[in-house]
Amino acid sequence: MKIEVKKNVLQNNDLAAARNRSRLAGKRTAMLNLMAAPGAGKTSAIIKAIEGTRDSRALAVIEGDITSEVDSLAIEALGIPAIQINTGGSCHLTASMIGAALDHLDLDNLDLIIVENVGNLVCPAEFDLGESARVTISSVAEGHDKPLKYPLVFREVDAVVINKTDLMPYCDFDLAFFRDAVERLNPDAHVLRMSCRDGSGSEEWCRWLMNSVV
Amino acid sequence: MKIEVKKNVLQNNDLAAARNRSRLAGKRTAMLNLMAAPGAGKTSAIIKAIEGTRDSRALAVIEGDITSEVDSLAIEALGIPAIQINTGGSCHLTASMIGAALDHLDLDNLDLIIVENVGNLVCPAEFDLGESARVTISSVAEGHDKPLKYPLVFREVDAVVINKTDLMPYCDFDLAFFRDAVERLNPDAHVLRMSCRDGSGSEEWCRWLMNSVV
Repeated sequence: MKIEVKKNVLQNNDLAAARNRSRLAGKRTAMLNLMAAPGAGKTSAIIKAIEGTRDSRALAVIEGDITSEVDSLAIEALGIPAIQINTGGSCHLTASMIGAALDHLDLDNLDLIIVENVGNLVCPAEFDLGESARVTISSVAEGHDKPLKYPLVFREVDAVVINKTDLMPYCDFDLAFFRDAVERLNPDAHVLRMSCRDGSGSEEWCRWLMNSVV
Repeated sequence: MKIEVKKNVLQNNDLAAARNRSRLAGKRTAMLNLMAAPGAGKTSAIIKAIEGTRDSRALAVIEGDITSEVDSLAIEALGIPAIQINTGGSCHLTASMIGAALDHLDLDNLDLIIVENVGNLVCPAEFDLGESARVTISSVAEGHDKPLKYPLVFREVDAVVINKTDLMPYCDFDLAFFRDAVERLNPDAHVLRMSCRDGSGSEEWCRWLMNSVV
């Protein structure tokens, strides 16, 4: 029974994701699904993306959180449209939640929508939102074994961002181990290093977004 | 329909949790459910607990992960019984998974079982495992806003451990903000500071375990 229900939930989600995808394709709007553990730096990476691409791209952000408006207020403060989805306990965004958010955005005049998923390395990876690209962010402080423990969220993405590289001297993070683990799961993933705190790597992050996403 | 299923799942879980709780009470064995985001330092905190309490307490560990045996091998290397549960995609442990693990432990000769839940600040908080105490660990690197975004996992615990305090000089972590947010959700929670890397706070952690858990 549990399996049956899960299958139905995922099938319904896939239908809603297909609707989002065709709606966005019709408007030539790209959508990026950004996934990470809590506190890995998703919002900071979005702010870097805004700063580095807003001169040439029209952006909007959809923020997913269990509760609170902390993140969408930070984005709106930059003058970028931001829709906050509060999932009310659910541990991931779904395609129908995104569909409802798209209704509130001016798709005719947007190049890229960045979706910040709920902070969680497990469930978000199972739910297609209708996005055109997916990125997982992993913080150096989380340790280099995360790809071993949460393989799906590293397998099904276009890029992996290693964030908080400024903490590298203070953490026992084995970069070669991490890169190797990602490569075995996902040889095509582009792996970037970034520190949102000191700004290093943010140019490459924005270049990747502009070359590969929108 | 979704709500109905969730209610059944949680009701079944509550029955299995009650069975675990009475089984452990009959053996006078305490069980601690340790929850945190990926990479917050759950396994390191367990190792500190082992080092600081093994002289006077008989311990075992149950490790919950989607996949991999990394953590249980680290615990077994210390000579402590460790049961690895691989949830195979599920984002939290359930009481029936714990019940199956208890079958493999010598409960007559154990004072404390530490359960390391799946790295996730959302779903584990909803599932009673039959534990006698609950702790959430939050790493300084994750930022001070986590209690606002993941309130449940801070509300329903006996203690909150702020880990990786050695990173405090390199992160914008506002300790007063964090403590205040925890206090508003959970005024009775004991809040500890710890660095598993430099060892500070681990004596207080072990003292709390021995005074309040077992």
